[in-house]
Amino acid sequence: MPRYRLDIEYDGTGYAGWQRQDDHPSIQQAIETAIHGFCGETVSIRGAGRTDAGVHALGQVAHVDLEKTWPEDTVRDAINAHLLMARERVVILAARQVDEEFDARFSAVKRHYIYRIVCRRAPLVIEKNRALWSPKPLDAAAMHEAAQRLVGRHDFTTFRSMSCQANSPVRSLERLDVVTGDADGLIEIHASARSFLHNQIRSFAGTLRLVGEGKWSADDVEAALVARDRKACGPVAAPQGLYFRAVEYPDPDS
Amino acid sequence: MPRYRLDIEYDGTGYAGWQRQDDHPSIQQAIETAIHGFCGETVSIRGAGRTDAGVHALGQVAHVDLEKTWPEDTVRDAINAHLLMARERVVILAARQVDEEFDARFSAVKRHYIYRIVCRRAPLVIEKNRALWSPKPLDAAAMHEAAQRLVGRHDFTTFRSMSCQANSPVRSLERLDVVTGDADGLIEIHASARSFLHNQIRSFAGTLRLVGEGKWSADDVEAALVARDRKACGPVAAPQGLYFRAVEYPDPDS
Repeated sequence: MPRYRLDIEYDGTGYAGWQRQDDHPSIQQAIETAIHGFCGETVSIRGAGRTDAGVHALGQVAHVDLEKTWPEDTVRDAINAHLLMARERVVILAARQVDEEFDARFSAVKRHYIYRIVCRRAPLVIEKNRALWSPKPLDAAAMHEAAQRLVGRHDFTTFRSMSCQANSPVRSLERLDVVTGDADGLIEIHASARSFLHNQIRSFAGTLRLVGEGKWSADDVEAALVARDRKACGPVAAPQGLYFRAVEYPDPDS
Repeated sequence: MPRYRLDIEYDGTGYAGWQRQDDHPSIQQAIETAIHGFCGETVSIRGAGRTDAGVHALGQVAHVDLEKTWPEDTVRDAINAHLLMARERVVILAARQVDEEFDARFSAVKRHYIYRIVCRRAPLVIEKNRALWSPKPLDAAAMHEAAQRLVGRHDFTTFRSMSCQANSPVRSLERLDVVTGDADGLIEIHASARSFLHNQIRSFAGTLRLVGEGKWSADDVEAALVARDRKACGPVAAPQGLYFRAVEYPDPDS
């Protein structure tokens, strides 16, 4: 069966998240329904990351096996036509036929996320549901410095959801940079790793926000990490600031 | 009576535009209703620009006279609280008490707009209602070159709506730059002038898009300008790409 890689953008607002669920709209279901609309096949797609409710994607990747071979552009455009008709806020950026060894989830070697915060007194309007609103200014330099204490291979028990299903709390965090953006008051947290634990980046963002507000020091962040205790984490930051930006795979052709 | 200058951001989606209208939600009405909610006064506010339905603002400016003097932060925060309660997508970025000579519309010496276009094959999702979607790539350099033919003092009859109520079609266009943005496929048109005619920037954007697609040359744009004929204009570009970015006034204190 021909296998296709799908690169996907979505506005997570109003969705229960990536994963198919009974009684709640999900990104996965939206795409599977659109594929059925296009070619009549009932398929199950697998994504590189199971994003939570309200989390967005600029470059989620999934794979799907179809019975029949179609031109790549037809797969992309036909799925998009059905997504558009169903008024879904999900779109296929690219469809490519890949080797059957390719697995969107298990072949991934690096995942990139961005967490966006806008600091200003007035509530967000243009950026509503697109960033976290911080009515207080945040010290991005202090946040960046503290973030470096988290980079590396660690037991991240403190920074994962109690419901995380990963076998091990140990992960290698390659990058956690806090930078100021182009727009006034915009702060972006860039996070990269082979894989992340459930709620890990939102746990980082909520904790680093405490540093940005001057309530926590970099030492406090390190102490929270070393504690390996979920209760030592700062408040988990809201989902609307989080974007699944890109996924890397070993073979540039896949 | 104390006069306040209000700096305003809004998402124009779903509004009939700036100006108060019977039976349709407008930005002006949203703010006037919020002011009434805050201090009980029935006011009429005047904006620097009467944006159309679906057009956004990052820095619209209006002025309002209140019976009573309030701290500036109270004016901003109280209006915002009422806007938020009414679920309006409008927010006051700043409120400042100004001289009674200050008039948001008539004191303005320069207005700045941005028109955003995203060129890519897939429909827009994250940027839906935030930019114009061009499924075809556009040649930004050719658009910029053609745009320079429009800069200066001209009779812009070709580029104004038939329903434009300005006395004269002559305007001095100070800047019309077409630049590629940070994001993939993003093109921004930056337009600045003391004042603009009705639909002038959307008429420019639609005409320059023809240049970007290779259908029109810079000479065609100049010929359209010289024709002083509305029928010579390209198709008016959709409102969701347009942002009223900022207004300048002569006195930095006002």
